[in-house]
Formats: sequence, structure tokens, C-alpha cells
Amino acid sequence: LSSKTIALDAMGGDKGARIVVPAAIKALKKHPDLSIILVGDERRLKAITKKHLGRFGARLRIHHAAEVVGMDEPPSQALRNKKDSSMRVSINLVKSEEAQACVSAGNTGALMATARFVLKTLPGINRPAIVSAFPTSDKTKVVHFLDLGANVDSSAEHLFQFAVMGSILASVVSNVSSPKVGLLNVGQEEIKGNEQVRKAAELFSSSDSINYYGFVEGNHLFDHTVDVIVCDGFVGNIALKATEGVAKLIRHYMKEVLKHNWFARICAVFAMPIFMAFRKRINPDRYNGASLLGLNGIVIKSHGGTSVLGFLNAIETALLEIDDNIPQKIREKVGSILVTPQNPKAMDSGI
Amino acid sequence: LSSKTIALDAMGGDKGARIVVPAAIKALKKHPDLSIILVGDERRLKAITKKHLGRFGARLRIHHAAEVVGMDEPPSQALRNKKDSSMRVSINLVKSEEAQACVSAGNTGALMATARFVLKTLPGINRPAIVSAFPTSDKTKVVHFLDLGANVDSSAEHLFQFAVMGSILASVVSNVSSPKVGLLNVGQEEIKGNEQVRKAAELFSSSDSINYYGFVEGNHLFDHTVDVIVCDGFVGNIALKATEGVAKLIRHYMKEVLKHNWFARICAVFAMPIFMAFRKRINPDRYNGASLLGLNGIVIKSHGGTSVLGFLNAIETALLEIDDNIPQKIREKVGSILVTPQNPKAMDSGI
Repeated sequence: LSSKTIALDAMGGDKGARIVVPAAIKALKKHPDLSIILVGDERRLKAITKKHLGRFGARLRIHHAAEVVGMDEPPSQALRNKKDSSMRVSINLVKSEEAQACVSAGNTGALMATARFVLKTLPGINRPAIVSAFPTSDKTKVVHFLDLGANVDSSAEHLFQFAVMGSILASVVSNVSSPKVGLLNVGQEEIKGNEQVRKAAELFSSSDSINYYGFVEGNHLFDHTVDVIVCDGFVGNIALKATEGVAKLIRHYMKEVLKHNWFARICAVFAMPIFMAFRKRINPDRYNGASLLGLNGIVIKSHGGTSVLGFLNAIETALLEIDDNIPQKIREKVGSILVTPQNPKAMDSGI
Repeated sequence: LSSKTIALDAMGGDKGARIVVPAAIKALKKHPDLSIILVGDERRLKAITKKHLGRFGARLRIHHAAEVVGMDEPPSQALRNKKDSSMRVSINLVKSEEAQACVSAGNTGALMATARFVLKTLPGINRPAIVSAFPTSDKTKVVHFLDLGANVDSSAEHLFQFAVMGSILASVVSNVSSPKVGLLNVGQEEIKGNEQVRKAAELFSSSDSINYYGFVEGNHLFDHTVDVIVCDGFVGNIALKATEGVAKLIRHYMKEVLKHNWFARICAVFAMPIFMAFRKRINPDRYNGASLLGLNGIVIKSHGGTSVLGFLNAIETALLEIDDNIPQKIREKVGSILVTPQNPKAMDSGI
């Protein structure tokens, strides 16, 4: 075995193995120290990977799983009835330490529920959060944004745990010392926001464990006002998807403008290289791969409808977290911050 | 007097009279049936409008107001202490029917609190909502999105009232018969979402007064899946501002790509007309002007940092609502829907 092994849910997502297998091959070519376990229907996976199996030797293996979790399947049902799903078995491989991470493009709710059930949360963390790093107008900086949809009714204490985990992630992965943490709100003034956010602001302000910046509005998500932005998963998921929606609308406009008239068409010929570069910059696949943070293990969620390039990026997010040993870092630091008598509420048993 | 009169808060917004007065002049030139009352510091406004006062005669008047509401002033403070503010006096002119609408680029919270206090909500409406129409990938269609930030802790009943008002607006302004109403959520499945949204879905489904489509995710905000999208103001405000944030990031990328190298620079010369057309399409000023819906009168909120063109658009939103007599339409239809014994919860006194 080489030094890093990642289990891939080869059946998950809108396109399953058709995306996952080519991405796996690309990842193996690019990272010589990587081994991959493809989890799913053995016969089908064998047929697809036939010509590659020899080439990569023990670095590419297939692990059979008979079932698949549907993209719309309720999490509780997946958890109860799909014990031999490609998703569940991938997570089991992390639990048994046969893999150091797993990646799935499957149903987010089911992935979260299953990962939580199999791997359990780290001490001091009640609820895992979904986090992803996004580009900002400062080319050299990203923003870590959480929760993107794991929790739809977070308390102030949960938001505080997200803030602590986000800080650790930003300091380790992005190498920022004392990352600035912002709380997503409808205004910058202290009086604004709903009850949950106002309570969280009090908790954030009174803690020495995070470098709390204050409230951040939605229009500052991508201008690197802060290194970490914290919000409830309902809000974060909608904000994130709204940005996807507007990016799609803008791509649509771009096409329309290019086709507008003969003059635009001629200009467009000259402008094509610029447009291609631009499209590449705004391609969401570049930023694919969100982490389920707060678990005893690394689980990466890929967008369900991503491309081969997108899934490759998700694999590389897993590689980064293996290199940085993220769950261990969170375990070490969270332990000293959250599991203390000063913060008894953070220790309740959660949902 | 000509047929339509609009009061403008000439001191509100980041730039006050410097934006409002030129926008007023443009509006008067464009709409011969429009009269404008500029509300604010009389001496200052007289000095700025000197050369125009003769030209437009009684169509351009100045109404003195000694105070200004600060952009960060708490709503309760503005309501208590700024009784002679340009904002308050503009709203008073709607109350006294000297104007049929008012437009302000001032502080949203103060505008909402003052408008609600002075004008009161329509029968059956507990809370006004902020609504705006946004472009979609279907050139001929817009989406009416509410609430954009008036209410940060809406109940299911409040969301239902927003749905009813949004439907009426879409049917009258956009001339859609039986507009489709979507509820903004983190997933399309019935099981997803927070408690507030699940309760609202039950209420929406059981009503004959709206054409309920179901849940809509953030990435479908701008693809005209529905005509009306309803959510709590905390979520709506953050979603809207997140789209502003990503549009800004995309404009930033466009600039960077254009400057990338000598080849890009040469291409850029040819492509400039396309880029200009594209920038024009994605310019948020084109869509400026949100309504405070559910009041006994028309109050339009302009973005605080808008341009002359943006403020002009806000004035034109007011004109549209005067033409369509929106508050009266809501009064007629909401009366029969919401103020009935079948829906007693919708009649509580609100906040």
C-alpha cells in the first residue's frame, strides 16, 4: 500500500461511475502516493476499469457494495435500509482505517446521517458541519464558509462550535494564524439579526478561542473581509445555491450578448480566448469538494452533478485533509476549548 | 397638478441629493404626467435645483424637512427622535395623500419602521414585506422575491401572507394569471427544511388562494421555475446580498482576465463592445427599487449606494405601482383571503 488511501463512492451522484472512475484514474496518474478503493457494483466497476487495473496494480482496487442510496432518499431510510450501499461501505472503510478518507457525490442528507452514525462526532462537537473553501477577490486567499446545509436549526452554541472548527481549518489548511471569523447577518449593526445570531454574537465575542470579527453581510462573502464565515445550514445552503443561480444567469447573459448581432459575433471571435479564460475562472467545478467537519474521519461531499474535473477536485480536497490530518487537529484543539466547565452548554448531547 | 405625484427622500442613501436630484430631473423629463416633491433641506435643495425649478413649474416642488435619518441609526431611535426627517416627511406626504408614493434610499430598518407606524398595514397583513422583481433566464419573465429583509423571525402564517401579497403583485404587475409560488428551501423533498418552512408548506398546500408550486432551491432563484419566491427576511436578505457578492467577484475576474497578458489586451480591444453590453446586463442598478408591500400606501426602497440610473429605476417602480394601484388591489384580495374565520392565526396582531 502506498501512503494515502481514499475510498470513493463510485455509484453516488447524478452520473455515478461514469464520472467517478475517470476522476479516479486522473487522480492516480497525478498523485503517485495515492491508492484508491472504488466502492460499488463489482461487476460493473470491473468492466469499466478493466484496462486500468493492470496499470495501477494494488493502487486501484474494487470493493463490492450491492446497494445504492438514491439521490432523493430520506436520510433515515438510507441509514436503516441501505447497510450495503456504496456510500455506507465507503464510510465503513474510513471507520476500519482501510482508507484515510472517503469521497461521495451522493445525497447530502444521507451522507451526513450515515457518516455521523458510523464515525461519530469528535469530543466537544454536537453536530458536524459542511464546510467549503471559496475563492475571493484576493487571489491568494480563500474564505471557509460553514455550515452549508448539515443543520437547519442551529443554536448559538452550535454556531460557536462551527466557528471553532472553521478557525482550526483555516489556520491549518490555509496557514492563516489567528483567522478572522465573521458571523453572517443581515446588517453590520449590533441591533440587527434574528435571536439565534444575536445570541451567537455574544458567545463569539466572549471567547478567546476565536478571533471574532463581527457581523458580515452576504455581499462580503467573497471579498475576503474575513477568513471564516459562520451561519446556520439553512441560510448557508440557500446563500451558496443563490450564488450558483446567479452565476448560471450570468453565463446565460454572456451567451446572449455574444449572439446579439453580427458585430457582436465578429467581436466574439476575437474575444473567445478571454471568454474561455473567464468561463474557466467561474466554473464551479474548480471549487468542488466540501468537508463534513467534526467527525472522527475525513468525509468529502462532491456536488451531485459535478464533472470529472469537479470530482478530481473533491479527491484532492480529501488529499489535503489527509496531509493536514484535520480530524486530529480539531480533536486536539477543540478538546481544550469546548470541553471545559466554562462552556457547559457546548457539551449537551445535540440532536 | 399632473396625475401622479411622488415624494422623494432627497437626503437618504449614501449620496443623498447628489443622486436623488439628477434622477428626479431625468424622471420628470421622461414622464410628462409625473410631479415630484423633493423632501429635505430646503436651502440646499433650492440651490441644487435652481435652474430646473422654472423649467418644470409646479411639477417640481421642494418640501422642507430639517432632519436626516443616519444610515446606521437604529429604527426605534429614528422613529422616536426624527419626526422631521426627510424620510418621515416623505412618508407623511403619502399618508396625507399629497403624494401617491414615496421613494427613499435611506436606512431600510428605519424606513420600514416609520412607514409601518405612519401608514399602518393593510387589513389581514401583520407584517409588511420587502419585495423586488428580478430578471430570469427567460428574458420576458421576472421573479418576485420576498421577504428581502423586513422580518427576521417570520412564522409560517407570515410567510403565507407574503405568498398571498406576492401572488397579487405578480398577477397585477407582471400580468401573470395564477402565478406559481415557490417556498425557498434547502431541498425539494418534503422532508427537508427547518420547522418554519415545513409548517409554511402545509399552510401553502392547503390554500386555494395561491397556486403553490412546492419547494424551490437557491439555484433556481433566477431560472423562472416560479413567478413568486417566498422566504423569511433573514434568509432572503442574505441570499440577495450573496448574489450581489458573487456578481462583484465575477466583474473582478472579468477585469483580471482582460489584463492578463498582451494577447488578452489585444482581444479585449475588439471585445469591448461585448463586455460593455454584458456589464450593462449585470448592472444591479437596472433592478433597483424594492417595494414595502402590505402597507396603506406605496413606499419604495432604493439601494443606499445606487447611481442616478438606479434611483431613476426606483422612481419608475413607484410609477408602476401607482398605475396598478397595488395597495388597493392587495386590500381587495387579501381581505377575502386572510380575514376569514378559517384562518384565524393570520389575524393575530403580529409583532
